[in-house]
Amino acid sequence: MKLVLIGTGNISNALGRLLANAGHQVLQVYGRDRQRAAHLAYDTGAAPVSDWKAIRSDADLYITAISDRALTGFKEKLQLPGKFLVHTAGSVPLNVLEGVSERTGVWYPLQSIRGDQPTPHKIPFLIQTSAPEDSVLLRELSESIGCPSQVVTESVRINMHHAAVWVNNFPNLLYSIAYRLTEENKVPFDFLLPLLQETADRQNGTDPWKWQTGPALRNDTVTLQKHMDLLKSHAGWQELYAKMSAAIADLTQKAE
Amino acid sequence: MKLVLIGTGNISNALGRLLANAGHQVLQVYGRDRQRAAHLAYDTGAAPVSDWKAIRSDADLYITAISDRALTGFKEKLQLPGKFLVHTAGSVPLNVLEGVSERTGVWYPLQSIRGDQPTPHKIPFLIQTSAPEDSVLLRELSESIGCPSQVVTESVRINMHHAAVWVNNFPNLLYSIAYRLTEENKVPFDFLLPLLQETADRQNGTDPWKWQTGPALRNDTVTLQKHMDLLKSHAGWQELYAKMSAAIADLTQKAE
Repeated sequence: MKLVLIGTGNISNALGRLLANAGHQVLQVYGRDRQRAAHLAYDTGAAPVSDWKAIRSDADLYITAISDRALTGFKEKLQLPGKFLVHTAGSVPLNVLEGVSERTGVWYPLQSIRGDQPTPHKIPFLIQTSAPEDSVLLRELSESIGCPSQVVTESVRINMHHAAVWVNNFPNLLYSIAYRLTEENKVPFDFLLPLLQETADRQNGTDPWKWQTGPALRNDTVTLQKHMDLLKSHAGWQELYAKMSAAIADLTQKAE
Repeated sequence: MKLVLIGTGNISNALGRLLANAGHQVLQVYGRDRQRAAHLAYDTGAAPVSDWKAIRSDADLYITAISDRALTGFKEKLQLPGKFLVHTAGSVPLNVLEGVSERTGVWYPLQSIRGDQPTPHKIPFLIQTSAPEDSVLLRELSESIGCPSQVVTESVRINMHHAAVWVNNFPNLLYSIAYRLTEENKVPFDFLLPLLQETADRQNGTDPWKWQTGPALRNDTVTLQKHMDLLKSHAGWQELYAKMSAAIADLTQKAE
Protein backbone atom coordinates (compact mmCIF):
# COMPACT_ATOMS: atom_id res chain seq x y z
CA MET A 1 0.00 0.00 0.00
CA LYS A 2 1.22 3.53 -0.75
CA LEU A 3 1.20 5.66 2.38
CA VAL A 4 1.86 9.19 3.52
CA LEU A 5 2.72 9.75 7.17
CA ILE A 6 1.83 13.06 8.76
CA GLY A 7 3.64 13.74 12.02
CA THR A 8 7.02 12.70 13.43
CA GLY A 9 6.23 11.85 17.05
CA ASN A 10 6.32 8.49 18.88
CA ILE A 11 3.28 7.01 17.11
CA SER A 12 4.35 8.06 13.64
CA ASN A 13 7.85 6.68 14.20
CA ALA A 14 6.63 3.35 15.56
CA LEU A 15 3.89 2.79 12.97
CA GLY A 16 6.00 4.13 10.09
CA ARG A 17 8.80 1.67 10.80
CA LEU A 18 6.42 -1.25 11.28
CA LEU A 19 4.65 -0.45 8.01
CA ALA A 20 7.87 0.02 6.02
CA ASN A 21 9.25 -3.24 7.44
CA ALA A 22 6.07 -5.01 6.36
CA GLY A 23 6.73 -3.90 2.77
CA HIS A 24 4.40 -0.94 2.47
CA GLN A 25 5.62 1.96 0.43
CA VAL A 26 5.93 5.10 2.51
CA LEU A 27 5.90 7.88 -0.08
CA GLN A 28 6.37 10.85 2.21
CA VAL A 29 6.80 11.86 5.82
CA TYR A 30 5.42 15.27 6.68
CA GLY A 31 6.86 17.08 9.70
CA ARG A 32 7.14 20.71 10.75
CA ASP A 33 10.56 19.84 12.16
CA ARG A 34 12.66 19.16 9.04
CA GLN A 35 15.29 17.15 10.88
CA ARG A 36 12.79 14.81 12.48
CA ALA A 37 10.94 14.40 9.18
CA ALA A 38 14.23 13.67 7.40
CA HIS A 39 15.18 11.09 10.03
CA LEU A 40 11.94 9.11 9.85
CA ALA A 41 11.82 9.50 6.05
CA TYR A 42 15.31 8.04 5.78
CA ASP A 43 14.38 5.06 7.97
CA THR A 44 11.21 4.31 6.00
CA GLY A 45 12.57 4.97 2.51
CA ALA A 46 10.32 8.00 2.10
CA ALA A 47 10.80 11.60 1.08
CA PRO A 48 10.66 14.21 3.85
CA VAL A 49 8.35 17.21 3.39
CA SER A 50 7.78 20.25 5.59
CA ASP A 51 5.34 22.10 3.36
CA TRP A 52 1.68 21.07 3.41
CA LYS A 53 1.41 21.93 -0.29
CA ALA A 54 4.13 19.39 -1.13
CA ILE A 55 2.03 16.44 0.04
CA ARG A 56 1.34 14.11 -2.86
CA SER A 57 -2.18 13.17 -3.86
CA ASP A 58 -1.52 9.63 -5.13
CA ALA A 59 -1.29 7.67 -1.85
CA ASP A 60 -3.79 4.94 -0.91
CA LEU A 61 -3.84 6.09 2.70
CA TYR A 62 -2.86 9.19 4.69
CA ILE A 63 -2.06 8.51 8.34
CA THR A 64 -1.94 11.47 10.71
CA ALA A 65 -0.32 11.12 14.08
CA ILE A 66 -0.20 14.70 15.24
CA SER A 67 -1.30 16.11 18.61
CA ASP A 68 -4.99 16.19 19.52
CA ARG A 69 -4.87 19.97 19.47
CA ALA A 70 -3.21 20.14 16.04
CA LEU A 71 -5.95 17.83 14.67
CA THR A 72 -8.58 20.44 15.51
CA GLY A 73 -7.12 23.02 13.11
CA PHE A 74 -6.20 20.44 10.51
CA LYS A 75 -8.56 21.49 7.73
CA GLU A 76 -7.02 24.96 7.56
CA LYS A 77 -3.71 23.34 6.67
CA LEU A 78 -4.50 20.44 4.40
CA GLN A 79 -7.09 19.46 1.80
CA LEU A 80 -7.20 15.88 0.55
CA PRO A 81 -10.50 15.63 -1.34
CA GLY A 82 -11.48 12.02 -2.02
CA LYS A 83 -8.37 10.60 -0.30
CA PHE A 84 -8.57 8.10 2.54
CA LEU A 85 -7.34 9.87 5.67
CA VAL A 86 -7.14 8.41 9.19
CA HIS A 87 -6.09 9.78 12.55
CA THR A 88 -4.61 7.68 15.35
CA ALA A 89 -5.94 9.41 18.48
CA GLY A 90 -7.98 7.55 21.09
CA SER A 91 -10.37 10.23 22.24
CA VAL A 92 -10.65 12.61 19.27
CA PRO A 93 -13.95 12.41 17.30
CA LEU A 94 -13.78 11.13 13.74
CA ASN A 95 -15.52 14.27 12.42
CA VAL A 96 -12.46 16.38 13.26
CA LEU A 97 -11.23 15.25 9.83
CA GLU A 98 -14.32 16.58 8.05
CA GLY A 99 -13.32 19.40 5.76
CA VAL A 100 -9.99 17.71 4.96
CA SER A 101 -11.51 14.70 3.23
CA GLU A 102 -14.90 12.97 3.01
CA ARG A 103 -13.30 9.54 3.30
CA THR A 104 -12.04 9.37 6.87
CA GLY A 105 -11.26 6.92 9.60
CA VAL A 106 -9.49 6.22 12.89
CA TRP A 107 -6.73 3.66 13.29
CA TYR A 108 -6.18 3.81 17.04
CA PRO A 109 -3.28 1.84 18.56
CA LEU A 110 -4.42 0.80 22.04
CA GLN A 111 -0.89 0.71 23.43
CA SER A 112 1.63 2.95 25.12
CA ILE A 113 4.34 3.82 22.61
CA ARG A 114 7.43 5.74 23.69
CA GLY A 115 10.19 6.81 21.37
CA ASP A 116 12.86 5.99 23.94
CA GLN A 117 11.68 2.38 24.23
CA PRO A 118 11.44 -0.54 21.80
CA THR A 119 8.06 -0.66 20.07
CA PRO A 120 5.82 -3.15 21.93
CA HIS A 121 5.28 -6.39 20.02
CA LYS A 122 1.52 -6.34 20.32
CA ILE A 123 -0.45 -3.29 19.31
CA PRO A 124 -4.21 -3.92 19.15
CA PHE A 125 -5.96 -1.45 16.85
CA LEU A 126 -9.47 -0.06 17.19
CA ILE A 127 -10.89 0.90 13.82
CA GLN A 128 -13.60 3.34 12.84
CA THR A 129 -14.38 4.59 9.31
CA SER A 130 -16.85 6.98 7.73
CA ALA A 131 -17.51 4.45 4.94
CA PRO A 132 -18.03 0.90 6.26
CA GLU A 133 -16.11 -0.69 3.36
CA ASP A 134 -12.95 1.23 4.30
CA SER A 135 -12.69 -0.69 7.57
CA VAL A 136 -11.55 -3.73 5.55
CA LEU A 137 -8.49 -1.82 4.43
CA LEU A 138 -7.55 -0.85 7.99
CA ARG A 139 -8.08 -4.41 9.22
CA GLU A 140 -5.73 -5.67 6.49
CA LEU A 141 -3.22 -2.96 7.35
CA SER A 142 -3.24 -4.07 11.02
CA GLU A 143 -2.87 -7.70 10.00
CA SER A 144 0.04 -6.85 7.70
CA ILE A 145 2.06 -5.72 10.72
CA GLY A 146 0.93 -8.71 12.83
CA CYS A 147 -1.50 -6.83 15.03
CA PRO A 148 -5.09 -7.67 16.03
CA SER A 149 -7.85 -5.18 15.26
CA GLN A 150 -11.54 -4.63 15.85
CA VAL A 151 -14.03 -2.34 14.14
CA VAL A 152 -15.85 -0.27 16.77
CA THR A 153 -18.15 2.70 17.14
CA GLU A 154 -16.84 6.07 18.25
CA SER A 155 -18.40 5.60 21.66
CA VAL A 156 -16.66 2.24 22.16
CA ARG A 157 -13.31 3.69 21.07
CA ILE A 158 -13.58 6.54 23.56
CA ASN A 159 -14.63 4.12 26.30
CA MET A 160 -11.61 1.93 25.55
CA HIS A 161 -9.32 4.96 25.61
CA HIS A 162 -10.72 5.54 29.09
CA ALA A 163 -10.34 1.86 30.08
CA ALA A 164 -6.67 2.09 29.07
CA VAL A 165 -6.16 4.62 31.87
CA TRP A 166 -7.17 1.89 34.35
CA VAL A 167 -4.51 -0.57 33.17
CA ASN A 168 -1.73 1.95 32.47
CA ASN A 169 -1.84 5.37 34.19
CA PHE A 170 -3.41 4.12 37.41
CA PRO A 171 -1.33 0.97 38.01
CA ASN A 172 1.73 3.09 37.24
CA LEU A 173 0.63 5.52 39.97
CA LEU A 174 0.29 2.61 42.41
CA TYR A 175 3.77 1.38 41.48
CA SER A 176 5.08 4.92 42.07
CA ILE A 177 3.49 5.01 45.53
CA ALA A 178 4.95 1.59 46.36
CA TYR A 179 8.35 2.83 45.17
CA ARG A 180 8.14 5.68 47.68
CA LEU A 181 7.15 3.27 50.44
CA THR A 182 10.18 1.06 49.71
CA GLU A 183 12.41 4.15 49.74
CA GLU A 184 11.07 5.18 53.15
CA ASN A 185 11.86 1.68 54.40
CA LYS A 186 15.27 1.45 52.71
CA VAL A 187 14.36 -1.72 50.84
CA PRO A 188 15.16 -1.70 47.11
CA PHE A 189 12.09 -1.53 44.85
CA ASP A 190 13.59 -4.64 43.20
CA PHE A 191 12.14 -6.60 46.11
CA LEU A 192 8.61 -5.75 44.95
CA LEU A 193 9.23 -6.26 41.23
CA PRO A 194 8.68 -10.04 41.10
CA LEU A 195 5.31 -9.60 42.82
CA LEU A 196 4.38 -6.70 40.54
CA GLN A 197 5.30 -8.82 37.50
CA GLU A 198 3.55 -11.93 38.77
CA THR A 199 0.36 -9.90 39.25
CA ALA A 200 0.47 -8.71 35.63
CA ASP A 201 1.75 -11.97 34.15
CA ARG A 202 -1.18 -13.95 35.56
CA GLN A 203 -3.66 -12.03 33.44
CA ASN A 204 -4.78 -14.10 30.50
CA GLY A 205 -7.85 -12.28 29.24
CA THR A 206 -10.31 -13.79 31.71
CA ASP A 207 -11.69 -11.85 34.67
CA PRO A 208 -8.73 -10.64 36.82
CA TRP A 209 -11.01 -10.75 39.83
CA LYS A 210 -10.25 -14.47 40.22
CA TRP A 211 -6.73 -13.42 41.34
CA GLN A 212 -7.98 -10.96 43.93
CA THR A 213 -6.49 -11.49 47.41
CA GLY A 214 -5.64 -9.34 50.42
CA PRO A 215 -7.16 -7.80 53.52
CA ALA A 216 -9.96 -5.88 51.77
CA LEU A 217 -11.22 -9.04 50.05
CA ARG A 218 -11.19 -10.97 53.34
CA ASN A 219 -12.72 -8.01 55.21
CA ASP A 220 -9.73 -8.29 57.54
CA THR A 221 -10.44 -5.06 59.42
CA VAL A 222 -7.44 -5.47 61.75
CA THR A 223 -4.92 -5.49 58.87
CA LEU A 224 -6.83 -2.75 57.02
CA GLN A 225 -6.58 -0.53 60.09
CA LYS A 226 -2.86 -1.31 60.47
CA HIS A 227 -2.25 -0.26 56.87
CA MET A 228 -4.29 2.92 57.33
CA ASP A 229 -2.15 3.72 60.39
CA LEU A 230 1.05 3.16 58.40
CA LEU A 231 -0.22 5.80 55.95
CA LYS A 232 -1.01 8.46 58.53
CA SER A 233 1.72 10.77 57.23
CA HIS A 234 0.38 10.36 53.66
CA ALA A 235 -3.19 11.65 53.84
CA GLY A 236 -3.84 11.39 50.09
CA TRP A 237 -2.62 7.81 49.83
CA GLN A 238 -4.58 6.91 52.97
CA GLU A 239 -7.79 8.13 51.32
CA LEU A 240 -6.85 6.25 48.16
CA TYR A 241 -6.23 3.08 50.20
CA ALA A 242 -9.66 3.46 51.79
CA LYS A 243 -11.42 4.04 48.44
CA MET A 244 -9.65 1.14 46.81
CA SER A 245 -10.50 -1.16 49.70
CA ALA A 246 -14.12 -0.03 49.51
CA ALA A 247 -14.18 -0.84 45.77
CA ILE A 248 -12.79 -4.32 46.53
CA ALA A 249 -15.43 -4.86 49.23
CA ASP A 250 -18.09 -3.70 46.78
CA LEU A 251 -16.96 -6.11 44.03
CA THR A 252 -16.76 -8.88 46.64
CA GLN A 253 -20.40 -8.34 47.54
CA LYS A 254 -21.39 -8.36 43.86
CA ALA A 255 -19.44 -11.60 43.30
CA GLU A 256 -21.16 -13.37 46.22
CA MET B 1 20.04 -28.60 56.17
CA LYS B 2 17.54 -30.80 58.05
CA LEU B 3 14.09 -29.25 58.02
CA VAL B 4 10.62 -29.81 59.40
CA LEU B 5 7.71 -28.17 57.58
CA ILE B 6 4.60 -27.27 59.55
CA GLY B 7 1.55 -26.62 57.41
CA THR B 8 0.38 -27.91 54.05
CA GLY B 9 -0.94 -24.77 52.34
CA ASN B 10 0.34 -22.88 49.29
CA ILE B 11 3.46 -21.46 50.98
CA SER B 12 4.46 -24.75 52.57
CA ASN B 13 4.03 -26.58 49.28
CA ALA B 14 6.00 -24.06 47.25
CA LEU B 15 8.86 -23.63 49.74
CA GLY B 16 8.97 -27.34 50.61
CA ARG B 17 9.42 -28.32 46.97
CA LEU B 18 12.02 -25.62 46.32
CA LEU B 19 13.99 -26.65 49.40
CA ALA B 20 13.84 -30.38 48.64
CA ASN B 21 14.90 -29.71 45.03
CA ALA B 22 17.85 -27.70 46.32
CA GLY B 23 19.04 -30.75 48.26
CA HIS B 24 17.77 -29.95 51.72
CA GLN B 25 16.56 -32.88 53.78
CA VAL B 26 12.90 -32.44 54.69
CA LEU B 27 12.48 -34.75 57.69
CA GLN B 28 8.78 -34.30 58.28
CA VAL B 29 5.71 -32.48 57.04
CA TYR B 30 3.14 -31.74 59.72
CA GLY B 31 -0.47 -31.24 58.64
CA ARG B 32 -3.83 -31.58 60.36
CA ASP B 33 -5.13 -32.94 57.08
CA ARG B 34 -3.40 -36.32 56.74
CA GLN B 35 -3.90 -36.56 53.01
CA ARG B 36 -2.40 -33.16 52.29
CA ALA B 37 0.51 -33.89 54.64
CA ALA B 38 1.09 -37.25 52.95
CA HIS B 39 1.04 -35.63 49.51
CA LEU B 40 3.62 -32.94 50.30
CA ALA B 41 5.69 -35.40 52.34
CA TYR B 42 5.81 -37.77 49.38
CA ASP B 43 6.91 -35.00 47.02
CA THR B 44 9.65 -33.80 49.36
CA GLY B 45 10.90 -37.20 50.53
CA ALA B 46 9.66 -36.55 54.06
CA ALA B 47 7.52 -38.43 56.59
CA PRO B 48 3.99 -37.11 57.11
CA VAL B 49 2.82 -36.45 60.67
CA SER B 50 -0.54 -35.32 61.99
CA ASP B 51 0.24 -35.44 65.70
CA TRP B 52 2.11 -32.50 67.23
CA LYS B 53 3.85 -34.93 69.63
CA ALA B 54 5.35 -36.85 66.69
CA ILE B 55 7.43 -33.86 65.54
CA ARG B 56 11.13 -34.72 65.75
CA SER B 57 13.53 -32.61 67.77
CA ASP B 58 16.65 -33.09 65.65
CA ALA B 59 16.01 -30.67 62.75
CA ASP B 60 18.19 -27.61 62.09
CA LEU B 61 15.16 -25.50 61.24
CA TYR B 62 11.40 -25.64 61.75
CA ILE B 63 9.40 -23.68 59.18
CA THR B 64 5.76 -22.92 59.96
CA ALA B 65 3.46 -21.79 57.20
CA ILE B 66 0.10 -21.95 58.92
CA SER B 67 -2.63 -19.30 59.01
CA ASP B 68 -2.06 -16.06 60.93
CA ARG B 69 -4.84 -17.07 63.31
CA ALA B 70 -3.36 -20.53 63.95
CA LEU B 71 0.01 -18.92 64.75
CA THR B 72 -1.57 -17.08 67.68
CA GLY B 73 -2.45 -20.29 69.52
CA PHE B 74 0.72 -22.05 68.46
CA LYS B 75 2.42 -22.39 71.84
CA GLU B 76 -0.46 -24.44 73.25
CA LYS B 77 0.20 -27.04 70.57
CA LEU B 78 3.93 -27.25 70.18
CA GLN B 79 7.06 -26.83 72.29
CA LEU B 80 10.46 -26.75 70.61
CA PRO B 81 12.83 -25.53 73.34
CA GLY B 82 16.17 -24.41 71.90
CA LYS B 83 15.16 -25.22 68.30
CA PHE B 84 15.31 -22.63 65.53
CA LEU B 85 11.72 -21.91 64.51
CA VAL B 86 10.57 -19.45 61.86
CA HIS B 87 7.20 -18.31 60.59
CA THR B 88 6.54 -17.08 57.05
CA ALA B 89 3.79 -14.49 57.59
CA GLY B 90 4.21 -10.88 56.45
CA SER B 91 2.31 -9.02 59.13
CA VAL B 92 2.48 -11.31 62.18
CA PRO B 93 4.87 -10.15 64.96
CA LEU B 94 7.92 -12.29 65.65
CA ASN B 95 6.99 -12.63 69.32
CA VAL B 96 3.98 -14.77 68.44
CA LEU B 97 6.50 -17.64 68.48
CA GLU B 98 7.62 -16.87 72.06
CA GLY B 99 6.64 -19.74 74.29
CA VAL B 100 7.30 -22.29 71.53
CA SER B 101 11.03 -21.60 71.28
CA GLU B 102 13.49 -18.90 72.33
CA ARG B 103 15.29 -19.06 69.01
CA THR B 104 12.85 -17.61 66.52
CA GLY B 105 12.72 -15.84 63.22
CA VAL B 106 10.64 -14.81 60.22
CA TRP B 107 11.39 -15.96 56.67
CA TYR B 108 8.81 -13.95 54.74
CA PRO B 109 8.39 -14.58 51.00
CA LEU B 110 7.38 -11.24 49.46
CA GLN B 111 5.49 -12.90 46.63
CA SER B 112 2.02 -14.15 45.76
CA ILE B 113 2.09 -17.93 45.79
CA ARG B 114 -0.95 -19.91 44.66
CA GLY B 115 -1.16 -23.67 44.73
CA ASP B 116 -3.00 -23.76 41.39
CA GLN B 117 -0.18 -21.88 39.64
CA PRO B 118 3.49 -22.61 38.98
CA THR B 119 5.70 -21.24 41.75
CA PRO B 120 7.07 -17.83 40.68
CA HIS B 121 10.75 -17.93 39.75
CA LYS B 122 11.75 -15.04 41.96
CA ILE B 123 10.77 -14.96 45.60
CA PRO B 124 12.51 -12.19 47.55
CA PHE B 125 12.68 -13.01 51.27
CA LEU B 126 12.57 -10.57 54.17
CA ILE B 127 14.38 -11.95 57.19
CA GLN B 128 14.08 -11.19 60.87
CA THR B 129 15.57 -13.23 63.74
CA SER B 130 15.57 -13.01 67.53
CA ALA B 131 19.33 -13.76 67.55
CA PRO B 132 21.26 -11.71 64.95
CA GLU B 133 23.58 -14.62 64.06
CA ASP B 134 20.62 -16.75 62.96
CA SER B 135 19.92 -14.34 60.08
CA VAL B 136 23.00 -15.77 58.31
CA LEU B 137 21.34 -19.17 58.18
CA LEU B 138 18.16 -17.75 56.62
CA ARG B 139 20.15 -15.76 54.10
CA GLU B 140 21.98 -18.93 53.07
CA LEU B 141 18.70 -20.81 52.90
CA SER B 142 17.28 -18.16 50.54
CA GLU B 143 20.40 -18.25 48.42
CA SER B 144 20.29 -22.06 48.22
CA ILE B 145 16.96 -21.81 46.35
CA GLY B 146 18.22 -18.94 44.17
CA CYS B 147 16.27 -16.17 45.88
CA PRO B 148 17.40 -12.73 47.07
CA SER B 149 16.95 -11.81 50.74
CA GLN B 150 17.37 -8.88 53.09
CA VAL B 151 17.53 -8.71 56.87
CA VAL B 152 15.00 -6.18 58.13
CA THR B 153 13.36 -4.95 61.31
CA GLU B 154 9.82 -5.98 62.21
CA SER B 155 8.58 -2.50 61.31
CA VAL B 156 10.15 -2.66 57.83
CA ARG B 157 8.71 -6.13 57.21
CA ILE B 158 5.21 -4.97 58.12
CA ASN B 159 5.62 -1.87 55.95
CA MET B 160 6.71 -4.03 53.01
CA HIS B 161 3.74 -6.36 53.54
CA HIS B 162 1.65 -3.22 53.21
CA ALA B 163 3.58 -2.01 50.15
CA ALA B 164 2.86 -5.37 48.51
CA VAL B 165 -0.85 -4.51 48.57
CA TRP B 166 -0.06 -1.54 46.29
CA VAL B 167 1.59 -3.66 43.61
CA ASN B 168 -0.68 -6.71 43.85
CA ASN B 169 -4.17 -6.30 45.38
CA PHE B 170 -4.76 -2.78 44.07
CA PRO B 171 -3.49 -3.17 40.47
CA ASN B 172 -5.53 -6.37 40.31
CA LEU B 173 -8.62 -4.38 41.35
CA LEU B 174 -7.89 -1.87 38.57
CA TYR B 175 -7.54 -4.71 36.07
CA SER B 176 -10.88 -6.09 37.29
CA ILE B 177 -12.56 -2.72 36.77
CA ALA B 178 -11.04 -2.43 33.27
CA TYR B 179 -12.29 -5.95 32.54
CA ARG B 180 -15.82 -4.86 33.40
CA LEU B 181 -15.46 -1.76 31.20
CA THR B 182 -14.37 -3.92 28.23
CA GLU B 183 -17.34 -6.24 28.87
CA GLU B 184 -19.74 -3.29 28.82
CA ASN B 185 -18.22 -2.24 25.49
CA LYS B 186 -18.12 -5.75 24.02
CA VAL B 187 -14.39 -5.58 23.35
CA PRO B 188 -12.37 -8.58 24.54
CA PHE B 189 -10.13 -7.87 27.55
CA ASP B 190 -7.35 -9.31 25.35
CA PHE B 191 -7.25 -5.91 23.67
CA LEU B 192 -6.04 -4.29 26.90
CA LEU B 193 -3.58 -7.04 27.86
CA PRO B 194 -0.59 -5.84 25.80
CA LEU B 195 -0.89 -2.38 27.38
CA LEU B 196 -1.31 -3.88 30.86
CA GLN B 197 1.80 -6.01 30.30
CA GLU B 198 3.82 -3.20 28.77
CA THR B 199 3.09 -1.05 31.83
CA ALA B 200 4.40 -3.77 34.16
CA ASP B 201 7.26 -4.89 31.92
CA ARG B 202 8.76 -1.40 31.81
CA GLN B 203 9.45 -1.42 35.53
CA ASN B 204 13.12 -2.03 36.20
CA GLY B 205 13.53 -1.06 39.83
CA THR B 206 13.88 2.68 39.24
CA ASP B 207 11.10 5.15 40.00
CA PRO B 208 7.98 4.11 38.02
CA TRP B 209 6.94 7.76 37.99
CA LYS B 210 9.12 8.32 34.93
CA TRP B 211 6.58 6.25 32.95
CA GLN B 212 3.61 8.28 34.14
CA THR B 213 1.39 9.58 31.33
CA GLY B 214 -2.27 10.40 30.85
CA PRO B 215 -4.81 13.19 31.37
CA ALA B 216 -4.23 13.61 35.13
CA LEU B 217 -0.50 14.16 34.62
CA ARG B 218 -1.15 16.71 31.86
CA ASN B 219 -3.93 18.35 33.89
CA ASP B 220 -6.12 17.77 30.82
CA THR B 221 -9.37 18.74 32.51
CA VAL B 222 -11.44 18.16 29.36
CA THR B 223 -10.47 14.47 29.10
CA LEU B 224 -10.70 14.02 32.87
CA GLN B 225 -14.28 15.32 32.79
CA LYS B 226 -15.13 13.06 29.81
CA HIS B 227 -13.87 10.04 31.76
CA MET B 228 -15.80 11.07 34.86
CA ASP B 229 -18.93 11.32 32.69
CA LEU B 230 -18.32 7.85 31.26
CA LEU B 231 -18.33 6.55 34.86
CA LYS B 232 -21.57 8.18 35.90
CA SER B 233 -23.32 4.84 36.33
CA HIS B 234 -20.42 3.57 38.49
CA ALA B 235 -20.33 5.98 41.43
CA GLY B 236 -17.63 4.05 43.35
CA TRP B 237 -15.28 3.85 40.39
CA GLN B 238 -15.92 7.51 39.60
CA GLU B 239 -14.77 8.47 43.09
CA LEU B 240 -11.78 6.20 42.72
CA TYR B 241 -10.94 7.80 39.36
CA ALA B 242 -11.09 11.25 41.00
CA LYS B 243 -8.91 10.20 43.96
CA MET B 244 -6.35 8.52 41.72
CA SER B 245 -6.21 11.56 39.44
CA ALA B 246 -5.76 13.80 42.49
CA ALA B 247 -2.89 11.61 43.68
CA ILE B 248 -1.27 11.89 40.24
CA ALA B 249 -1.68 15.70 40.29
CA ASP B 250 -0.17 15.76 43.77
CA LEU B 251 2.89 13.72 42.75
CA THR B 252 3.23 15.92 39.65
CA GLN B 253 3.45 19.02 41.84
CA LYS B 254 6.04 17.33 44.06
CA ALA B 255 8.09 16.30 41.03
CA GLU B 256 8.13 19.85 39.63
